[in-house]
Amino acid sequence: MNDAGILWNMSERRKLTGDEINNGLSAHPQWKIEEGKLCRSLNFMSFPDAFSFMTSIAFEAERMNHHPELSNVYSKVRIALVTHDLGGISSLDFELAARIDEAALRYRMR
Amino acid sequence: MNDAGILWNMSERRKLTGDEINNGLSAHPQWKIEEGKLCRSLNFMSFPDAFSFMTSIAFEAERMNHHPELSNVYSKVRIALVTHDLGGISSLDFELAARIDEAALRYRMR
Amino acid sequence: MNDAGILWNMSERRKLTGDEINNGLSAHPQWKIEEGKLCRSLNFMSFPDAFSFMTSIAFEAERMNHHPELSNVYSKVRIALVTHDLGGISSLDFELAARIDEAALRYRMR
Amino acid sequence: MNDAGILWNMSERRKLTGDEINNGLSAHPQWKIEEGKLCRSLNFMSFPDAFSFMTSIAFEAERMNHHPELSNVYSKVRIALVTHDLGGISSLDFELAARIDEAALRYRMR
Repeated sequence: MNDAGILWNMSERRKLTGDEINNGLSAHPQWKIEEGKLCRSLNFMSFPDAFSFMTSIAFEAERMNHHPELSNVYSKVRIALVTHDLGGISSLDFELAARIDEAALRYRMR
Repeated sequence: MNDAGILWNMSERRKLTGDEINNGLSAHPQWKIEEGKLCRSLNFMSFPDAFSFMTSIAFEAERMNHHPELSNVYSKVRIALVTHDLGGISSLDFELAARIDEAALRYRMR
Repeated sequence: MNDAGILWNMSERRKLTGDEINNGLSAHPQWKIEEGKLCRSLNFMSFPDAFSFMTSIAFEAERMNHHPELSNVYSKVRIALVTHDLGGISSLDFELAARIDEAALRYRMR
Repeated sequence: MNDAGILWNMSERRKLTGDEINNGLSAHPQWKIEEGKLCRSLNFMSFPDAFSFMTSIAFEAERMNHHPELSNVYSKVRIALVTHDLGGISSLDFELAARIDEAALRYRMR
């Protein structure tokens, strides 16, 4: 895990400021904010690849007790992260994003 | 599988008429048409239940080579079915819906 | 979860005596001791059923941080439970067995 | 997929001779013969990695309608391949082995 990942890991669990979110987006350039959520879209080589990836994410989410919004159509997966009980994007969302990025590195993408 | 399920199974693969869709919805009352797609929402007792159910659906989809739109947030799963290359809802969508209903019977729902 | 399940749940985490294991086996009649492990074999209707069941078990195992020995050939799954760091079968094994039994109830078996 | 993989892919489905098996093992050095089966053991960085990998294999097995013997304990997975109805190791086993090797490339191993 890179420095940015370790940073989130060590952060307290709290809603982030706009500046913190911008810093986070710089460290995780595959993500962007859409409708107040931290979002990434991925396009795998096959449906089994997409689903095996989602299985990895499912275990991470359970481990963190923080669950993404997952959408899947064939080889495409879209992930949206937000921390409802903190009313916005939190350190937890960027920590899960970092773990998702790590899992995504395994796969070839279209 | 019930009579309706067997019917779809034996149908040729083709776009359905409005009357056929209405008959299908009568046989599969958990489903409705939304934005031209055959849709069902389910709310499981837990995220692991929701994800294990999606795993079952993933195998059915691969077997049929017909894949749903899947959305998941925590214990909730939403499924939307449409046959893009036939330009609408087909017999294949109702066949997959019947198999999804069968898999869903396994789980307690909220 | 039945009374037996709740019992294990509330037990401290420790190696069980022979009498306790016999009581546990009475409450969980699908299980038996083989080579010092608590074992159950299941035969599902299909490979996808077997694998979706294993997915449920995988989430339970992660949640408890206690992992089974899993063997799968087509529709058959064999599970063996033991607590290596306690040197035998523990309350944790019977708790995981109870959760596995609950998940297995969902499926039709051969 | 490498030349060897393409070879198996194009082979008819039949039991292999001892010489063919030896050639296959040279092309797939992670595998060996144990008790008449084509076997590979893998040790992942975590249980979720091991299980996500098994999910990939499960989809390949369904697609080929040829299923492995899978054993899993925590981060370890052991795979044994044989074609029972041909009475030995077949071209199908080496084709599945090649796909398993490809999926395993995604993961860091211990």
